[in-house]
Order: sequence, then C-alpha cells, then structure tokens
Amino acid sequence: MSILRFDVTTRDWLIYAPERAHRPRDTAPNRPISPAPEPHRCPFCPGNEDLTPIELHADRQAGASSWRVRVIPNKFPALRVDDGSGRVEDGSFFQQMGGYGAHEVVVESPDHRLFLGHQPDAQVETLLRCLRDRSARLLEDPRIQAVVVFKNHGERAGTSLRHPHWQIIATPVTPRTLRLKHAIATEHFDRTGRCLHCALLEAERAAGVRILTENEAFSAILPYASQAPYQIRILPRQHASAFARTHDGALKPLALILKAALSVLHRALGDPDFNLVINTAPRDDEDKGYFLWHIDVLPRLSMPAGFEMGSGMAINAVLPEEAARQLREVRVRE
Amino acid sequence: MSILRFDVTTRDWLIYAPERAHRPRDTAPNRPISPAPEPHRCPFCPGNEDLTPIELHADRQAGASSWRVRVIPNKFPALRVDDGSGRVEDGSFFQQMGGYGAHEVVVESPDHRLFLGHQPDAQVETLLRCLRDRSARLLEDPRIQAVVVFKNHGERAGTSLRHPHWQIIATPVTPRTLRLKHAIATEHFDRTGRCLHCALLEAERAAGVRILTENEAFSAILPYASQAPYQIRILPRQHASAFARTHDGALKPLALILKAALSVLHRALGDPDFNLVINTAPRDDEDKGYFLWHIDVLPRLSMPAGFEMGSGMAINAVLPEEAARQLREVRVRE
Repeated sequence: MSILRFDVTTRDWLIYAPERAHRPRDTAPNRPISPAPEPHRCPFCPGNEDLTPIELHADRQAGASSWRVRVIPNKFPALRVDDGSGRVEDGSFFQQMGGYGAHEVVVESPDHRLFLGHQPDAQVETLLRCLRDRSARLLEDPRIQAVVVFKNHGERAGTSLRHPHWQIIATPVTPRTLRLKHAIATEHFDRTGRCLHCALLEAERAAGVRILTENEAFSAILPYASQAPYQIRILPRQHASAFARTHDGALKPLALILKAALSVLHRALGDPDFNLVINTAPRDDEDKGYFLWHIDVLPRLSMPAGFEMGSGMAINAVLPEEAARQLREVRVRE
Repeated sequence: MSILRFDVTTRDWLIYAPERAHRPRDTAPNRPISPAPEPHRCPFCPGNEDLTPIELHADRQAGASSWRVRVIPNKFPALRVDDGSGRVEDGSFFQQMGGYGAHEVVVESPDHRLFLGHQPDAQVETLLRCLRDRSARLLEDPRIQAVVVFKNHGERAGTSLRHPHWQIIATPVTPRTLRLKHAIATEHFDRTGRCLHCALLEAERAAGVRILTENEAFSAILPYASQAPYQIRILPRQHASAFARTHDGALKPLALILKAALSVLHRALGDPDFNLVINTAPRDDEDKGYFLWHIDVLPRLSMPAGFEMGSGMAINAVLPEEAARQLREVRVRE
C-alpha cells in the first residue's frame, strides 16, 4: 500500500511506495544492475502475456499475429486505485494521504529490441494514440489531479526492463513542477494575454540557432535554458494545453518529429540513455490559453550530484546552440 | 568561461560550464566510469601537490609530515572568480549573466581511502572548521549570494575522483531550492513567531520513531518526509541559521554525530554511495530567526527517472520510521 506525505519545509508531496522495494534496482545499495531477461522470459514480449497482471488495453488488428501496443498495470506500482485517498493529519507537521492513483505500463511494440526512433511511422502513431487515450481515460476520474506520461531508456535513466515501454502515473495531487510551471505561465497570460510557451517558441524560431527540425505541426528545439546537454523539446505550433486532447490529425506529424529527434540523438551520441516526459496542463485547465503541452527528451550523460540536489540548480556542460549545431550536422548527413 | 541563463518557464537560473565537459564523466554517453587513479598519481594525495592548481589553504601542524586538510580550486569549475557577473538581456525571453562565483575542492584528509565515518574525531573536527571558515570567507564577497557545501561519495553519487573530498560552490544568484525553503520558513516565522525547522525538530523528538541518535548539541533524524530511502538529517538543537556562523564549541559534537551517522549508514547498507549537502540561510539572513541550518545525507540507492524529473515528486520505497528502526539496530550492535 502506498501513501503520500507532505513536506512542510518545501510544500511538496512525496510518494512512499514500499512495493517498489521489490524491484531489482531500488534500495539495493551499489548492486550491479542485472542484465535484462532473455526474450523468451520477458514479460513484455508476445507469448508471455501470462507473466503480467491483467491487461488494461491492447491494440489488436484482425489477422495480425500479435497486438501492436499493450497496456498493463505496473507490477510494482507507485500509486494504486485500490488505495484510499483520505487525508490524515497528526499535529501541524505530519500530514499524509492514501496513495490513490494509477501506474500503468505501455509496451511500445511487440519487438524486444527495436529502438523507438527506428520503428515504422504507423507503429509510433499507434503508440501515441494509445498514450493519449489512456491519459484521457485516467482524467475521467475526478480524484486524479494530474497524469504524467514518461519513458525511461537505458540503465542510467532508471529502466529495469529492457523491452521498450512507457509508463503513465496518475496522481491525486498536482506535482510541484507541474504546479510551478503552470502558475508561471498563468501569471504571464494574465499580464500579457499570451501563452508564455507559444511566445517563447516564437522567439526561439526567430533566433533560429537552437532549432533541430520542424514539420507542419511541430517544432523540435534545444531550449535556451536546457536542463541537460542535448535536451530536446518538441512543441505543437498551434496552441494546445493538453496532450490528452491532441486531435487525430496531429498524431502522424507528432510521430514523425519524435522519430526524427530520437534517431538523431541515437546517431549523434551512440544510443544514449535518456528520460522522456510529456508536460501537460493540470486537469480543468486543459482548454485554457495558458500552457502549451510539450515533450522533453533529457539525455542522461552526466550525474546530478550534491550541488544540484541541494540547490535545485542544474549545471550543463554544453550550450544548447552548440548541441543543436552538432545534431543538425548529423541530421543533414542522414 | 561559464555563464548563467534564466529559464522563464520555471524562473530558475542554470549554470553553463563548458569546461566541465572535459571531466572524465560529463557528456561521455554511456561510457563506463574510469577507475580512480592509483594513489601515486592521485592529485589529492600528499606529495602530488604539483598536480593541482594553486593552493587556497592548507591546515599544517608543526612537525607533521603532511597537511591535514587542503583547499584548492576545482580544476573543472562550474563558476569562477575570473568570470564577470554582468547581465545581458536579448528580448524578453533570453537573459544570461556571467558565471561569477567560486568552486573549491576541500581534500578531506591525506588518506586516499579512509572513509569519513572512520576518521579520528579530531580530523573530522579540523575538516568541519575548514569548511566553515571557507564558507565565511566566500561570503565576504558581496557579489556572492549563496554558498553550497557538499560531498559526493561513490560513482553513483557523481564522484569522479576517489580520494575523499568535499566541494564548495559560491553562486552569484540564490538557487531555487534555497530560496523556496527560506521563503516557506520566513512565512512560517511571520505567522507563528517560531522557526519552522526548530518546531519540526521538536515534533520529531516528541514522536521519537525517526530519531537515529543525539548528543548535547545535535540531533540526527530520518525526516518524516524523506526524499530518499535512509536519508539522514543532522540539525543543531539550538537555533542557528547559518553553518558559516557555527561557533568553535559546536564543531566537536558536530564531528561526533556526523561520524556516527555515516558509520551506521556504511555498516547497515554496505558503504552506499551518497550525496551530502549543507543547507544554510542565504546571505544577510544569517542572524535571523527563520531558518535552522542542517546537513542532509542522501544515499543514492535508486535512480530518479522520468516521473521524478518531470513532476518534481520523489518516490521513496522505504518509510523513514522503518529505516530508522533498521539503522538504530545496527547502532546498538556496534
């Protein structure tokens, strides 16, 4: 059973999920990371469906030998629909609540090894449609405040199973970073009447030096204030607050630009480990003009250490315009 | 040359330090971490002083064969006194400033291998005195807004050289986490007339279940809202805002409780990698009643991944009262 606790010194909620101690990596001090299971034992491979908990969704085509995308509950969940959402206060300083929420795994494709950037266009589009639909479904529950869609690629990015997959965590409180970014964007909108992120994208396009690639609906840039070397951000060029509201027509250009960004990163840096996160407006603000949803791809090339953890300040060794120049060169050669 | 850039979407400053790209680990995608140099090649060992830049300070006793603690500039600095502190604004969205600041390395002892928790009491006291004095010295410069003192232990904590050492980074802006914690503590003080952290420590002592150990001047606890499994926080029991103002009489009990906490962690978890950070009030608030300085020891047992990076919400697999129970048992057996 999970619980959430409130930190009165930072006003953050934290998740306590004892079941995650049973994952191979968590709380195993300095133990080398175990190699991925062989394909025939992989719980995400077709034919091994009995190794996973109940199936939440699968995209199956008539006549095909396997599903194309499959959604299952995370076996070691951070939050669960079975847990309560009641709050308990013990004095002024100790507040906790039940770990109500959801933690799903979206198996990217039947293929145990194929990199997302090298998947067929239609497969990536199918995957993105599934992620959008699961997000929208989770937001139908009024107790869910936010849905975080993410992917961990490689051991240094926190993956414990190699078969390519995404995860979705639905939380009963709005997480800090989401709250902060949204508050800043709302304040900007109140002051200027414009979406901060749309205006920033316009300024990046005018500057030009940090653009990686574009198509008719999306831009991929290396942000001026990148958190990490070679960070790539993909943004819609028409204002849209919520990934869960993406219309069908945008899924194909989104699939194409995501593939382009990931394959360039793969080529330029030799298949780096990375985290990918979808940033989206919190519930009830999904139709407003404040926020532009976007994808951040964060390569894990350096290790955040004591300074970053203590100060909240990132140290980045590569300027994004230099990183953009390098990645564009790789792209031109392709 | 370093620069700082402002992220208008989060209102954070970030550090760009191209020189850090030359460190063995940074921006080297997935390359295995190189083994530490042998003692005779280690730039932090006595006899190899010529391998390091200028010496900023060394604690030498008459008749001793070596210094006890040695301070040098970081060879791959995040910030430098040679860089400017001027601000440049290019439109509304692109603001940067010179990377003015300091980045020092404090070599913990002449011993290449001895763990801090196993050092003689007097050596740890000498080290803490040196860290305090360097912090105070850096704060004499009015352009410095904050001083972050930290230690990275082990490869998963971001160490690139094995010889035990600490680092001090002095920044020309107040980092986000420091600003946030201080703002919350100030608001609490305004409302209640009490230091939030002192009151929280009192509540933790009354609850009792998360106390690891105490002496006449300090408490070591596992905080109610711990960020990471087995996180230990050391706090003074008399209100004191700033580590740099610690009086001489407190250095010995601080050395003893720090040794006790680290040696229990070492024994219980098998020498885990960890980050250690000193949290202290920003400049000019060092004599106020708002903030209680403290040390956080954060074992690196699990890897923050896409969810944590995207949401700012930590997932912890071990409740601190359970972790405290385990560590106290180890302590009793010693």
